[in-house]
Amino acid sequence: MELLKQTLKAIEGKNEEAVKRAWKSIDNLSKPIGSLGELENIIAKMAGITGKTHNKIHKKNIVIMCSDNGIWNKSLSSCPKDLTVTVTKNFVRGITGVCVLGDFFKADRTVVDVGVDYDFKDPGIIDKKVAYGTKDMTREPAMTKEECVKAIEAGIEIVDGLVKKGYDMFGTGEMGVCNTATSSAVLSVLKNLPVDMTVGKGSGITDSQFDAKKEAVRRAIAVNEPDSNDPIDTLSKVGGFDIAGICGCFLGAAKNRMPIVIDGFISAVAALCAFRLNRKVVDYIFASHLSAEPAIKYVMKELGLNPMLNLGMRLGEGSGCPMAFEIIEAALYVMDNMGSFDEANIDGTVLVDIRKGK
Amino acid sequence: MELLKQTLKAIEGKNEEAVKRAWKSIDNLSKPIGSLGELENIIAKMAGITGKTHNKIHKKNIVIMCSDNGIWNKSLSSCPKDLTVTVTKNFVRGITGVCVLGDFFKADRTVVDVGVDYDFKDPGIIDKKVAYGTKDMTREPAMTKEECVKAIEAGIEIVDGLVKKGYDMFGTGEMGVCNTATSSAVLSVLKNLPVDMTVGKGSGITDSQFDAKKEAVRRAIAVNEPDSNDPIDTLSKVGGFDIAGICGCFLGAAKNRMPIVIDGFISAVAALCAFRLNRKVVDYIFASHLSAEPAIKYVMKELGLNPMLNLGMRLGEGSGCPMAFEIIEAALYVMDNMGSFDEANIDGTVLVDIRKGK
Repeated sequence: MELLKQTLKAIEGKNEEAVKRAWKSIDNLSKPIGSLGELENIIAKMAGITGKTHNKIHKKNIVIMCSDNGIWNKSLSSCPKDLTVTVTKNFVRGITGVCVLGDFFKADRTVVDVGVDYDFKDPGIIDKKVAYGTKDMTREPAMTKEECVKAIEAGIEIVDGLVKKGYDMFGTGEMGVCNTATSSAVLSVLKNLPVDMTVGKGSGITDSQFDAKKEAVRRAIAVNEPDSNDPIDTLSKVGGFDIAGICGCFLGAAKNRMPIVIDGFISAVAALCAFRLNRKVVDYIFASHLSAEPAIKYVMKELGLNPMLNLGMRLGEGSGCPMAFEIIEAALYVMDNMGSFDEANIDGTVLVDIRKGK
Repeated sequence: MELLKQTLKAIEGKNEEAVKRAWKSIDNLSKPIGSLGELENIIAKMAGITGKTHNKIHKKNIVIMCSDNGIWNKSLSSCPKDLTVTVTKNFVRGITGVCVLGDFFKADRTVVDVGVDYDFKDPGIIDKKVAYGTKDMTREPAMTKEECVKAIEAGIEIVDGLVKKGYDMFGTGEMGVCNTATSSAVLSVLKNLPVDMTVGKGSGITDSQFDAKKEAVRRAIAVNEPDSNDPIDTLSKVGGFDIAGICGCFLGAAKNRMPIVIDGFISAVAALCAFRLNRKVVDYIFASHLSAEPAIKYVMKELGLNPMLNLGMRLGEGSGCPMAFEIIEAALYVMDNMGSFDEANIDGTVLVDIRKGK
């Protein structure tokens, strides 16, 4: 509990002065004002994070939180329960989607067992196990508050450790069969949305599984009555160790003034939890892609983030992060290398500003 | 005229067998079916282009067509007319947006003068000048049909030459003050859309310039009465040398069975012209980003393409292409390196297919 408290207290918002300075530099690049769209917002946001107009990323890491969910049963998921174990092992074997995309874009991975129902002996899987999976949230709280805090603190500790190793950009990923169900439950509570608006088809389920999934999420909320004003109460009653762990990653990155990227729906819901714990967290968060899970848009709206990519992906694992890293690095490279109006022999005053709301 | 005729005749559609084989391989990768979204479509599309399931890109080039538009006057553009000349020079100096993004993503550029109102002496600018800018289309046709064909053939020749040099992926860019106006005019005619739906604010204009731009486009169409069933008639009456040149690039890439990427609005309208000349062209075209010019969506809809990126960019120059190249290459890398269900120790039959319409 102490680490979480300290972390929430230590988080400071963006460097407003640096953001202003960055915009001045951006607006002096030889292009119509605002014409590089989100790339410009990325440059300015990074300035707010580091305090510098010019930034460079040195080492990238995607933290993958793995855990099991007590809610799992055959009627509501297309996946066998032990897929969590299999895929977690495959992360360290380097053959899953996030591994391959991470290799292509030179992003390392950190695989964390934060609550898988299995004892791993595979080297490379970091043991932060809180329990052997959560309880069945349709009958009782998924975890205790103490367990929830422990999972969040695991995320903070992991990021703290990676920062010490020189990583300066983070991604968030997960593996845990049924974690779109828990994410939908948390989102429904925090945003007071009906289950029909937050439950999607996850990794791919039949219509009857879809109905069962919605019913399970509905029941979990009814049975546990989570407090929508208390993210930890909500996470512990209807969430998962993976979501809590990722929530901790967002808090840890913000505390360390490091950029961190949302992948898909689960990681977005974790970001929302972190945001509800401390709103300054959002100054450090980038959104990578618009997941095929439709409810991700409610998170993006509250956080005020625009996903860079629109690829209809719904793999999870953190697989959207490597591409987002690359776009962020490209934006920073533009700031360093594009000509100014002077260098370009262009009178910048002629290019009228039609940006809205900046 | 002969080269254009030959090219249109030589274009063959995708290799359907290879596409089928690719989908079989994609569906055997260890992930829920369809969960990599557009990355999977990219892999399959590349198979249709090359005939092979596994593909690798070796050398990328963005062709930048530069030309002036007779429609230019101060009341409808935020840019001075000589900005076309200045920016064209800056392309070979390597300091513009597309150059910097191209450098970051290792994509070369080919700068083509297809009709700038200036005699360049800068080494590196390829001379394919059809005329010193188009005529004022609000009074007369922008160019003759012969000039239009010459500009299209310039694009074909450029791509033919680059293919001989080993380039195997192409991007499309442009510079030409007022070329969003000409693109809107061409789009309005080809899709029979009112000018209010096709004219956007381009590089950034005031409300009164916006009104003047719409009025100019409206007048150009009324004065010239282009035939909406004839892309060359339309291009020559209300288009520009840049749009025609890029249209030729799309035709040339398709003839050579090479992938080619749409950048923003102007390049999208050029792709539409190429598509109307030969519908098989679309089998070779990828869309990079959803430009801030709102009318680009009408082109995407007719071509059935989904832009990968959503960055609110409106710089042009081909600046969206390098990022799209990278995503395409990442998708191809996934096909080569991701584990199959067998390798991943997963029973693939449990992951139900919820793809729609495939």
